[in-house]
Amino acid sequence: MSSPHSAADFASLRARYRNRYENELFEKVIPFWERHAPDSAHGGHFNNLDRDGAVYDTTKHMWMQGRLVWMFSKLYRAVEARPSWLAIARNGMDFLRKHAARPDGRVYFSTTADGRPAYLQRKIFTECFYLMALAEYARAAEEPELLREAYEGLGRMWEWAWDWTKVGRPAYEGQAPSQALAVPMLLLNLIEEVAGEDFGTYRAEADDCIRRTALHVHADTRCVYEAVAPDGSRLEGPEGRLLTPGHAIEAGWFLQHWAQRLEHADAQRQALDMVRWSFEKGWDQKCEGLFYFVDAEGYAPVPLEWSMKLWWPHCEALYAHLLDYFLTGDAADLAAFESVHRYAFTRFSDPEYGEWFGYLDRQGVVTHRFKGGPYKGCFHVPRALWLCLRLLDEKPAWLA
Amino acid sequence: MSSPHSAADFASLRARYRNRYENELFEKVIPFWERHAPDSAHGGHFNNLDRDGAVYDTTKHMWMQGRLVWMFSKLYRAVEARPSWLAIARNGMDFLRKHAARPDGRVYFSTTADGRPAYLQRKIFTECFYLMALAEYARAAEEPELLREAYEGLGRMWEWAWDWTKVGRPAYEGQAPSQALAVPMLLLNLIEEVAGEDFGTYRAEADDCIRRTALHVHADTRCVYEAVAPDGSRLEGPEGRLLTPGHAIEAGWFLQHWAQRLEHADAQRQALDMVRWSFEKGWDQKCEGLFYFVDAEGYAPVPLEWSMKLWWPHCEALYAHLLDYFLTGDAADLAAFESVHRYAFTRFSDPEYGEWFGYLDRQGVVTHRFKGGPYKGCFHVPRALWLCLRLLDEKPAWLA
Repeated sequence: MSSPHSAADFASLRARYRNRYENELFEKVIPFWERHAPDSAHGGHFNNLDRDGAVYDTTKHMWMQGRLVWMFSKLYRAVEARPSWLAIARNGMDFLRKHAARPDGRVYFSTTADGRPAYLQRKIFTECFYLMALAEYARAAEEPELLREAYEGLGRMWEWAWDWTKVGRPAYEGQAPSQALAVPMLLLNLIEEVAGEDFGTYRAEADDCIRRTALHVHADTRCVYEAVAPDGSRLEGPEGRLLTPGHAIEAGWFLQHWAQRLEHADAQRQALDMVRWSFEKGWDQKCEGLFYFVDAEGYAPVPLEWSMKLWWPHCEALYAHLLDYFLTGDAADLAAFESVHRYAFTRFSDPEYGEWFGYLDRQGVVTHRFKGGPYKGCFHVPRALWLCLRLLDEKPAWLA
Repeated sequence: MSSPHSAADFASLRARYRNRYENELFEKVIPFWERHAPDSAHGGHFNNLDRDGAVYDTTKHMWMQGRLVWMFSKLYRAVEARPSWLAIARNGMDFLRKHAARPDGRVYFSTTADGRPAYLQRKIFTECFYLMALAEYARAAEEPELLREAYEGLGRMWEWAWDWTKVGRPAYEGQAPSQALAVPMLLLNLIEEVAGEDFGTYRAEADDCIRRTALHVHADTRCVYEAVAPDGSRLEGPEGRLLTPGHAIEAGWFLQHWAQRLEHADAQRQALDMVRWSFEKGWDQKCEGLFYFVDAEGYAPVPLEWSMKLWWPHCEALYAHLLDYFLTGDAADLAAFESVHRYAFTRFSDPEYGEWFGYLDRQGVVTHRFKGGPYKGCFHVPRALWLCLRLLDEKPAWLA
């Protein structure tokens, strides 16, 4: 890697961005959720919030419930021990435990406002976000029993992650065996979150996730494929050509965190490649912004929304490029961060009501006015702002 | 209803459109599938075809296989008994029966090129398209045994249609009981297709579907809701506000066919309302074209692709408005037909390679260059062109 930035570079960067991120996070984003999410009637939090915060659907989506609990617990521990933040986290945690988490470890994807189960996914993601929430909340609230539960849940997740027939997803003879980047990357983040400073305990599992993540990264084409065969070789057809730049960029910083902690030089290099190559493939040269999906060989990606610009890839890119700039001092990483910053703060940020819009068309025009939905909650925006702020304020000790 | 058009109106309409539709159907659309769909190695047809017809994914999607078989069988019976058309239908039928249709009546959603099962939906649609294909092919090929199978399958469908737990879809306590317009409308069309001239045999079933379709049509708001409670009352939240104009317009002509045959005046009126109201709610006043989804109360519809312009609602609207104009002579129905015609032939039709593009953004720019995909095959375009041509050439006997 090239040399890190100078102290003068850092001071200039800090002067340009620090206050903007702090203001966006604590004046625009967090207050939106504090004000509009809590359900005073049934407990828990609403996540389907219109532009101004009005509830347009009382269904509660548990990805969002878990992520909000994680975020407020994190802020309580990492930023300031405000009792109101812990109370918001507790309100979500109580709802999750009372209504969504089942004795068999499965967690409902959605419930009614009063907690009756409405849907269960044949995937492991709701469970992952529940465990992230559980661990972070346990530490914030100082409830070691809950942390023990999170550790137990993580063990179970390990069994489920590589064989989704265990969570009810059937397998068919004609399905090519494949592995989704989503799984090892999310587990890397989950282990980091559940284990905390105790990450050495999970060294073998982390190494396995690092190995599995690497299977998706192909230097010959400079692509991070969303799905590959179990041995890392390319899959045929559109599935094998699909790139999800936002995912790959997020996976890049998840991996970089581990690579830094473990002082794993190959993984550090690979994490950097993942972010840079995915920005290269995913950035729309014509209209700016990151595409949601890209076909590696230039075909039209099959998902209808492929050319839309979603908030979360931009959030992930903000932190990933800023982190890389801290690590490398390379002007290209800074330039990528600044492109994403300009796009995101111009297009997604809503000066009037707070939080960010989630969905733009290719041209950058808002297509969905709501701030929260089944897949958008109190997570990517505040997490990215907080992570960037943390870098701008004080590099974590484990960063070089 | 107002008076039908005059003979002079009809002659003028015919002069303007007949040859254009014939040319599009038989020179641009059908040859595309004849040339590019057949799989000479494994039998059956490819449906994932790029703009120029190249196969970009060898997965075979059985909705598309069934619909192509239906279309070529229909052309063979209704237009011209070309042996090549029957051979194409037989090629698809053989593949379906050999690889996709299971002894229990379920039909795989997708298979590999050589017919190994890849996915089974927890829905009844693949089975419906299989039965449509089976009945039409049986008549074309004069194979009464296959027609008997289609009748048997229709009986089974009746049991499955109103309770999807029978096809593996779990029910949860917090799910509001709801009925999707997709089901009664598709069954109306399926009975018409399977029963053919023998429609009287299914009078009770058709009446039940007409009754169930009517539950979605709300005169107070001039809306056709995609999902309603079993008693027809509105559901809460985005699900209850969702309009799918293309579906409602298609359901309108399915219903109109039955209403004409049964000389059912209320259903005739309702079918007309469904088409007119859905055009009214669905037409994009700013950019033209029919939205994919609309929220009845002006919220942002949750599906990411809501504002896109898809080929099939426009195909359905072409025939539905033209049919209504034949029935009413009303200038508004003709104007709606002509708006859709201009939009569709300008934006979707591809003079270079044939078939139509499937997906445009809100502004009408092509977002996906392929002509065939998992949900786009040899169906909506040729069916609509053929149905319009049939009206322009000779009104079916059962039309007033």
